[in-house]
Amino acid sequence: MAISSLRDLVLGPPLPTARMGHERLDNLRALAALSPDALASIAYANQEIYLGLVVAGAAGLAYSGTIVLAIAGLLIILGISYSQTISAYPTGGGSYTVARQNLGTTVGLVAAAALLTDYILNVAVSVTAGVEAAASALPALWNYRTELSLVLLVIITIANLRGIREAGAVMTVPVYLFVGTYLFMIAVGIARIVLGEPAGSFVQAAPAPTAEYAALTIVPLALVLRTFAAGCTALTGVEAMSNGVPVFRPPESKHANQTMFLMVALMAILFVGTSGLTQYFAVIPASEETILSALTHRIFLGWPGIVYYIIQASTLLVLMVAANTSFMDFPRVASILARDGFMPRQLAQVGDRLVFSNGILTLSGLAAVLIIVFLGDTHLLIPLFAIGAFLAFTLSQAGMVRHWVRERGQGWLLKAGVNGVGTLATATALTIITASKVPEGAWIVVLLIPGLVLVFRAINRHYLSVREQLTLYEGLPPDLKPLPEPRVVLPISGVHRGIIRAVRYASAISKHVTAVYIEIEPGSAEQVRQRWDEWGLEGEADLVVVPSPYRSIIEPFVEFLDQTDHEANDGQLATVLLPEFVTAHWWEQILHNQTAWLIKLTLLYRRRSSGRVRAIIDVPMYLREEAHPHPHPHLHPASK
Amino acid sequence: MAISSLRDLVLGPPLPTARMGHERLDNLRALAALSPDALASIAYANQEIYLGLVVAGAAGLAYSGTIVLAIAGLLIILGISYSQTISAYPTGGGSYTVARQNLGTTVGLVAAAALLTDYILNVAVSVTAGVEAAASALPALWNYRTELSLVLLVIITIANLRGIREAGAVMTVPVYLFVGTYLFMIAVGIARIVLGEPAGSFVQAAPAPTAEYAALTIVPLALVLRTFAAGCTALTGVEAMSNGVPVFRPPESKHANQTMFLMVALMAILFVGTSGLTQYFAVIPASEETILSALTHRIFLGWPGIVYYIIQASTLLVLMVAANTSFMDFPRVASILARDGFMPRQLAQVGDRLVFSNGILTLSGLAAVLIIVFLGDTHLLIPLFAIGAFLAFTLSQAGMVRHWVRERGQGWLLKAGVNGVGTLATATALTIITASKVPEGAWIVVLLIPGLVLVFRAINRHYLSVREQLTLYEGLPPDLKPLPEPRVVLPISGVHRGIIRAVRYASAISKHVTAVYIEIEPGSAEQVRQRWDEWGLEGEADLVVVPSPYRSIIEPFVEFLDQTDHEANDGQLATVLLPEFVTAHWWEQILHNQTAWLIKLTLLYRRRSSGRVRAIIDVPMYLREEAHPHPHPHLHPASK
Repeated sequence: MAISSLRDLVLGPPLPTARMGHERLDNLRALAALSPDALASIAYANQEIYLGLVVAGAAGLAYSGTIVLAIAGLLIILGISYSQTISAYPTGGGSYTVARQNLGTTVGLVAAAALLTDYILNVAVSVTAGVEAAASALPALWNYRTELSLVLLVIITIANLRGIREAGAVMTVPVYLFVGTYLFMIAVGIARIVLGEPAGSFVQAAPAPTAEYAALTIVPLALVLRTFAAGCTALTGVEAMSNGVPVFRPPESKHANQTMFLMVALMAILFVGTSGLTQYFAVIPASEETILSALTHRIFLGWPGIVYYIIQASTLLVLMVAANTSFMDFPRVASILARDGFMPRQLAQVGDRLVFSNGILTLSGLAAVLIIVFLGDTHLLIPLFAIGAFLAFTLSQAGMVRHWVRERGQGWLLKAGVNGVGTLATATALTIITASKVPEGAWIVVLLIPGLVLVFRAINRHYLSVREQLTLYEGLPPDLKPLPEPRVVLPISGVHRGIIRAVRYASAISKHVTAVYIEIEPGSAEQVRQRWDEWGLEGEADLVVVPSPYRSIIEPFVEFLDQTDHEANDGQLATVLLPEFVTAHWWEQILHNQTAWLIKLTLLYRRRSSGRVRAIIDVPMYLREEAHPHPHPHLHPASK
Repeated sequence: MAISSLRDLVLGPPLPTARMGHERLDNLRALAALSPDALASIAYANQEIYLGLVVAGAAGLAYSGTIVLAIAGLLIILGISYSQTISAYPTGGGSYTVARQNLGTTVGLVAAAALLTDYILNVAVSVTAGVEAAASALPALWNYRTELSLVLLVIITIANLRGIREAGAVMTVPVYLFVGTYLFMIAVGIARIVLGEPAGSFVQAAPAPTAEYAALTIVPLALVLRTFAAGCTALTGVEAMSNGVPVFRPPESKHANQTMFLMVALMAILFVGTSGLTQYFAVIPASEETILSALTHRIFLGWPGIVYYIIQASTLLVLMVAANTSFMDFPRVASILARDGFMPRQLAQVGDRLVFSNGILTLSGLAAVLIIVFLGDTHLLIPLFAIGAFLAFTLSQAGMVRHWVRERGQGWLLKAGVNGVGTLATATALTIITASKVPEGAWIVVLLIPGLVLVFRAINRHYLSVREQLTLYEGLPPDLKPLPEPRVVLPISGVHRGIIRAVRYASAISKHVTAVYIEIEPGSAEQVRQRWDEWGLEGEADLVVVPSPYRSIIEPFVEFLDQTDHEANDGQLATVLLPEFVTAHWWEQILHNQTAWLIKLTLLYRRRSSGRVRAIIDVPMYLREEAHPHPHPHLHPASK
């Protein structure tokens, strides 16, 4: 009861199934809920482009414009491609669904594995990047990034367990604050240029190139491609809109498409705008500062400090909201996989708050592991990121090509062509990303994705096998004739109230009850047998004494079980009844029931190795809290 | 089966109870088994005296002779005192027994807590000191002391689980090797002096005093007392002989006394001999070297290096054997406490190998924690050590005084006087040790000992309360009239072979069976009810459908249980029958039974909070390993 109340307080009261249809979002809220992953990626993508090029000094940084424009081009291709997916799959065209329906189950599972991997990484990257934005403003926090990231992760997890609508409401403000402040910053920057402020020069400002690049007269193509690959993280999250079509109000496809184009436009403006200004003013960050923080300082030079802090705060907040996108999508994809029998069934269960609680907790746990292992450092996590997203993009687009070719509806050739361009562009980016990032840690993802597919397959085989074993409509019809009364065997350690209770329970369910006393101290059985008779138990159950010269309790007991089953030869295994103590406090439990626990463990182990299964009955005896001088006070009415 | 074989291979086959009497040791083996703790302590006691005095430079080191002689005097007093205990308690006069019988249960428990604490510390100190001896010879090991200590701890633990006799055999060689090599070293040292080798001078050799002492013209008494306290660790383990009287061959007291005097003589010779030679030759160790290692180098100057390595190896080995002493005594004291109801009963159980396996594993685990926390550094562990031993010494000696005064047998005044001197001497040492070591970490022990006593008391109260609740001979006589057939309630998720099996089992034990289907998807109950009727289950059990608009399974089920119990009003709680899957591989288990597990957890929680207890029956269904195209191959004889 206390636990329920606490849960209600933190998570809100449970919602009935009937309200499920109302958990839909209007466009503005849906944009806030589904786009922050994509929007906020400019925070770390800008940073990665800077870190990728700065090793080649001013000559390297000169390439950032080209790279940003290439990525923006890719973004527009993706947007057009996905708008076709949204129209074709109005009930939700996640990469898994599209790839599975058009390219087969295995390809679908690869897409699903890729997406799940990237959702986890998105949480870790967004949270750590948000903490880095905050720590740029408050340098005292820089050394506590891991701890702060974990605290924020817990807050986001609780917010999500509360449910999608509240999450949507909480998320709206930071997303529009972020979009508003960054548009404002870009406007101020452009105004400075228009008012005649001169361009900066990386040649004066940039650090000298590292030893590796200092001797080179031209910037190597490999460096440019590697930086392009790192910058492609800006595009992760674009697919969220097509996964999330069902959360829009009807007509879902139309609303989803409107919202996606708005998102793509905002992404392009923010990404190109901030990058362009960085390059125009030749901004270089301090050692414990992000590039966006440095840009903000430069643009608002001479303005009150509060403006800078508001922008850093909005960056932190939008990254938290970006992490939240995964909390909507991961449980949804996991539940679809669970429904199809590729993930454990409990992930398909809708929790009390209309959200997939199990999926949320799984995601949160895995993201926490990543944050801890990678020391809360965004730059270390980035190489693992984006492979999953681009693999899912490519498979999804390829699936769409196949879809149009198969359907051959109106204008199918054009539609297939659009998705074909999308497939080619994303496949090219995927190749560049994989080739340049595998040595930096992406091999983990390259091994993980096929590993996950194997796990999905194994789970599916298991569930199919179970279904086949359980169905009543194949094979022999089930045996329906009544079972004989089970033979009940209970181990006893002596004769006391708990044992008498257990024997009475046993003889209420069967006439064939045997109590077994394992005699470790030679001669100790005599007193047990005497008390057995004294309390009239011989009428209820047979008492068997098994000597144990090796002082083991478990082995002689199990041997006795085997022997009775062999002698009875009735096709049944005897039921084991275990008298157990339930203590008043959990810590007292360690003082009891060790033997019952060992017997259960042994029988479980034998079940596995021999296929022999037997019913086990726990008959608890409740122990009171305190020693009481008069166990039955009503005998002494005067003592009150 | 495979587990048993592996255990037999590592630990040896189990021994029958009848052999227990033969597990006795002759004097030479008993000395090897019981004295190494005491003998080997010279290894770290010498080191502590050196480290304690060297801060005051040459002037400080000049005091080592005085301190060593004071400790040797204390040793002789202790030896005489304890010989009286051995005579008075031929069945084993551990400090707990003596203090409890003569000074009351609480004092006995304090002594027991003190001893147990010191046994754990002895393991940690001996193992780390042994590793330091080895690392003095092989400096490459110096940085891996923690890891090496843990490896040695595991080896000792396995040796002890094999049993006392084998342990005794293994231990004999190193103890006599140690005694032999050190007596030889002392002889060579004396020979050098006799042959006219001049004394060294600390004034030339010793490091300059630290800043704190450089300005002082005399060595402060506090420093001398603190060093004395650290040196008193040499005496830990003397009580082992009186605890271990029962392992001697009869007449036990006589043999134990002979062996103890041999031990005290050897301790005095080794301790005074090595310390005297260290001072005569003014030996100063290198920075990653023990004082005994430096002394060995000095004495065998010009001898082949192999002699040095043999002596370091014998030091390592005897310290391993010293750790082993605790492995005999800790489980013994723990089992006595468990037998008296002050520790969990399972610690009293004699394991398969006639040793107290549970106690051994507990000791090993706690020592491992100490080694890890104190970074495998003997010098950091020492301040915690010896308080327990001297507290137990004092209480035991005081108990003996009381014993003689009460008995008033022949010569009681003299005997009481001897133990009185022992009490005074050990109490004085205890005061010095406590006062000087509390700030250095001994506060942990000072808090731990009364904490343990409180735990012993709480466990005892619990066991007394349980006994009172279980006894058949007090309070109301137990209810012996037959119970009615239990009402059985089973939750079902649908109708399949596993459910049919569970229903058949339920109706074999009771005529009152109710199956409960929790309906989460509205309308899904219809198909369940239709199949229920189709397979003729309505004759075996009632089917009840409970709608769950909040999609929770557990809460509606538990509410249903409460309601039926309330309606039946027969004083019984319904039995819950849980159909469970047993998978072919343990990892498949995660895909099943989550609901059954949650129901059990909820009922357990309710048992605690409400005192309501109900029987729970697990009816397992065994799942085969592989999906099989023909679940019943015997239908298709051709398919083989």
